[in-house]
Amino acid sequence: MSEGKHPADATATTATIRAISAAEAPARKTPSNYPSPFAERMSGREKRVLGDLFGLKNFGVNLTRLEPGAVSSLRHSHSKQDEFIYVLEGTPTLVTDHGPELLAPGMCAGFAAGNGNAHCLENRSAGAVVYLEVGDRTIGDQGSYPDDDIQALKLADGGWAFAHKDGSPY
Amino acid sequence: MSEGKHPADATATTATIRAISAAEAPARKTPSNYPSPFAERMSGREKRVLGDLFGLKNFGVNLTRLEPGAVSSLRHSHSKQDEFIYVLEGTPTLVTDHGPELLAPGMCAGFAAGNGNAHCLENRSAGAVVYLEVGDRTIGDQGSYPDDDIQALKLADGGWAFAHKDGSPY
Repeated sequence: MSEGKHPADATATTATIRAISAAEAPARKTPSNYPSPFAERMSGREKRVLGDLFGLKNFGVNLTRLEPGAVSSLRHSHSKQDEFIYVLEGTPTLVTDHGPELLAPGMCAGFAAGNGNAHCLENRSAGAVVYLEVGDRTIGDQGSYPDDDIQALKLADGGWAFAHKDGSPY
Repeated sequence: MSEGKHPADATATTATIRAISAAEAPARKTPSNYPSPFAERMSGREKRVLGDLFGLKNFGVNLTRLEPGAVSSLRHSHSKQDEFIYVLEGTPTLVTDHGPELLAPGMCAGFAAGNGNAHCLENRSAGAVVYLEVGDRTIGDQGSYPDDDIQALKLADGGWAFAHKDGSPY
């Protein structure tokens, strides 16, 4: 994931939980870990952290909902993290270096680490979009954002440090 | 995953593929990598490899279908691999050390590496079950099977070596 997908995001961290209805998982309390003004652009996005509820550490899984007009993240690519999404409801537009592509329920896409193809989902429709997103937590990952003056470095504690492209901190 | 979730399973390995309908991904040609007689117990199970189609390496994602009476795998736990499942269709029964639990569409479960809680899904219903399964590919993973005379060791090439519990090979 492009931001903040680490154990500290989990509302519950016990590994004793059994199966749950994903839609009933608690929503993440921090809507975005991006610095301002990028955090504000994440309004209309809600993430329910699933994997951490079960004590998973090697990868994260979120159930994410985008209201009309909302976006999944800044358009970005990862140096070491693979990502995968599966659409459950609605018609998000996948935007990559190859342009926009309209998705539908049952469709999926993967974003391989290191290929530099920046991606995000945009909800350009009038209805809600719901999808599953998976990303691993490989150490040393870096996030690149071709459209915005921001870069991200994954910290040892699992969080992200954000900086301007010239290296100056936010 | 409990068996055979490695790049060699992918029908296509190009990373240039864009979004796809998961149900249209090709089914895995080898129904099971378990040795006999366990492979035969996997009849009625069909896996469509999704993550590998996009060049993902850090974790695998499959769309898996269980016909009535079929099971997801031998009941097992992993030493280093986290696993996650999300039910799309039908009502599989999750079987763990805590007993059986009936699932339904929209439900999910995670299986944290190293906790020893062996798990599988069984389709005890009259209809098909379809779910997404995710598992990472951490090196040195071992699979333990409390109900069966088998053990598994993840190889450097991503495959699995199976042996009896006394170490003798299959």
